[in-house]
Amino acid sequence: MVMNELFADRAAIGSESRLAQLFGGQLGPDGIKFSAGNPNPDLFPTTQMQAAFNTAIDTAGNHLFEYQEVAGPIHLRQQLANRGHQTAGINATADNVLVTQGGQQAIDLVAKLLLDVGDEVAVEAPTYVGALASFDQYSPTYLDVPIEDDGMDVDALEALLQDHPNIKLVYTVPDFHNPTGVTMSVAKRKRLVELAEQYHFYILEDTPYRDLRYHGKSLPAIKSFDRHGRVIFISSFSKILMPGLRVGWVIADELVINKLRQLKETSDLESPAIMLHAVSAFLDNNDLNQHVANMLSTYRHRLDAMLTALKAYMPENVHFTQPDGGFFIWLTLPEGVDTQSLLQNVVMPQAHVSYVPGQVFFAHQNIKNGVRLNFSGVNEQQIDAGIKRLAHALSVTTVHSA
Amino acid sequence: MVMNELFADRAAIGSESRLAQLFGGQLGPDGIKFSAGNPNPDLFPTTQMQAAFNTAIDTAGNHLFEYQEVAGPIHLRQQLANRGHQTAGINATADNVLVTQGGQQAIDLVAKLLLDVGDEVAVEAPTYVGALASFDQYSPTYLDVPIEDDGMDVDALEALLQDHPNIKLVYTVPDFHNPTGVTMSVAKRKRLVELAEQYHFYILEDTPYRDLRYHGKSLPAIKSFDRHGRVIFISSFSKILMPGLRVGWVIADELVINKLRQLKETSDLESPAIMLHAVSAFLDNNDLNQHVANMLSTYRHRLDAMLTALKAYMPENVHFTQPDGGFFIWLTLPEGVDTQSLLQNVVMPQAHVSYVPGQVFFAHQNIKNGVRLNFSGVNEQQIDAGIKRLAHALSVTTVHSA
Repeated sequence: MVMNELFADRAAIGSESRLAQLFGGQLGPDGIKFSAGNPNPDLFPTTQMQAAFNTAIDTAGNHLFEYQEVAGPIHLRQQLANRGHQTAGINATADNVLVTQGGQQAIDLVAKLLLDVGDEVAVEAPTYVGALASFDQYSPTYLDVPIEDDGMDVDALEALLQDHPNIKLVYTVPDFHNPTGVTMSVAKRKRLVELAEQYHFYILEDTPYRDLRYHGKSLPAIKSFDRHGRVIFISSFSKILMPGLRVGWVIADELVINKLRQLKETSDLESPAIMLHAVSAFLDNNDLNQHVANMLSTYRHRLDAMLTALKAYMPENVHFTQPDGGFFIWLTLPEGVDTQSLLQNVVMPQAHVSYVPGQVFFAHQNIKNGVRLNFSGVNEQQIDAGIKRLAHALSVTTVHSA
Repeated sequence: MVMNELFADRAAIGSESRLAQLFGGQLGPDGIKFSAGNPNPDLFPTTQMQAAFNTAIDTAGNHLFEYQEVAGPIHLRQQLANRGHQTAGINATADNVLVTQGGQQAIDLVAKLLLDVGDEVAVEAPTYVGALASFDQYSPTYLDVPIEDDGMDVDALEALLQDHPNIKLVYTVPDFHNPTGVTMSVAKRKRLVELAEQYHFYILEDTPYRDLRYHGKSLPAIKSFDRHGRVIFISSFSKILMPGLRVGWVIADELVINKLRQLKETSDLESPAIMLHAVSAFLDNNDLNQHVANMLSTYRHRLDAMLTALKAYMPENVHFTQPDGGFFIWLTLPEGVDTQSLLQNVVMPQAHVSYVPGQVFFAHQNIKNGVRLNFSGVNEQQIDAGIKRLAHALSVTTVHSA
């Protein structure tokens, strides 16, 4: 018997990790990467964070390295509840907060809490690939909901719910959606909560980009309209501070938080207290909103540069979204184009540009003509040159051949 | 519909968290806690670790807070492979190592890799409750293997395998076992590997206490006898450095490591790089073996004091194990005694002493006359006074009434 016959069914599912498809591929020295999804490390407040680590150790001493509370320190949970109120209109106390290992663990714990094999989950099409990778482990049945320029098509969701009344979970990235960059309107947010009440499902509201708005006014979180504990709100410091902190959090009803805390305990016991106390000290001693505001201008210029370049260079039959924030713009190429083979055969070798082919962002990997472009990790000169080269490659191949 | 009807089956299992039973209960000012399982924080190298955090930040700067490798930094994985060779006789390279969020995540990822609902897992009876809590999430079928003074009863395991040839996983804590303190003999280690080859199962060798030996000579790891990738070795820095680091690791065949890495990626993306680089810098700049050696004398005196007190004070019909290391001694009270109600009704109110009632350490929670005593968290005066009081309470109640 081969040993890997002993693996669980979920290990076979993971044999082609969705996340692995996000990376890889070599570009030459003039290469321009639109395939990343990372914040700009030049904007990291590393000096202040080093001070915060030292403050945490100086304050708590040896105690900092003992076993601690699973949910995270009360002071940090209060800070996060307060921030949820200030920035997203959410009413919550520290008891409604669970600190996690980044947003990814928050997604995984919610999936672990809710999903038995075959359970129905509605996801935006396309959606965040890391959520799909996490859901995959619990072998759900995916149902796709189209996404429009003002977010998830809630009429389509309602039609789906009529046919599938047992949908347990609707996953959404309402603000500057990954991969499309679009933002859900307030009207749709309210309607989604009403549907959750009517059809008895949980909404998982994933908001890593919510504070990275470069144009227009911030919208209240879906969670702010929640009256009956239908919304599980998650966020993280990965995009507004640094991803290496691995600090995310959940805001939800106490019933849900208590169960998630138990699942966290059996998953990794607790997060490292020094990370949580350092973040807490950083928040005490620095103005996070000012730090975010300082980042916004860098990212705003990059977004604007990419939209300008797309308008200037792209062929007419390439559609692109026009986000107000976040990290990504989504291209829709003519039907029939496979952006994976296009990348390998044309775009990387000829244009020396990379992007993420859209297929990986669809639960069923059945749509092949999308492209995710990242603008946060490239400067304005690179954006102009790279989009020009990409547009040229698309003009001479795809568009004519499709 | 009540919202918690939407929870997955595994959430119902967790409704009485096994781990929650480990804590709680108030003692008066003269109370003595034998119920803990924590290392002594006075022995933590906090100053050196603070220096290591600063070294990590000074060396890598902003890059330290970017997304990194899922498996952990190559330098740390080499250090861990080398340590496995030096201290446990394991032949491994960095490619055989995955760094995890403490030993708990290592256990959880292995369970996630192997266990479908109903799969058979053999566990020592009693065994580590945190492993049971993690396995519980994947709804296996537990099969109990008795434990003897030289470790798991491998004859009993073989008899079990004849009736249950589909056992996928045998979980063991071979060194200074939690909760009994016993150590598996070399002969049994070799035999266990032979059984794994013959009956096609994985051995999960969990070794958090392996370096905490106070008497006698260290034994080679079960993994050191592994020829065909049947053994998954896990350990952590929680007991030999500090638990708050939340740094553990797996040593296994590359096939297994690659799958576990994928599962870690979908569980929490990666561990915080600063923790891993700080531990790595600590190992570069300090002598971990010397640090452990310095701790041993404190713990040795406590173990010896507890064994002396048990011999002096305990009634004849209370059996106790005589460990050579670790944190725990196991008492077996006369059959019919329920140590949970004894604790609540007699021991805590009268003797002002706490212990962990043994029931929680059995997969089926069907054995009620065991007691786990911790000696690492109490000094010699407390040990003498506490065991005397405990023995008195047992003498006047249990032993006569049973």
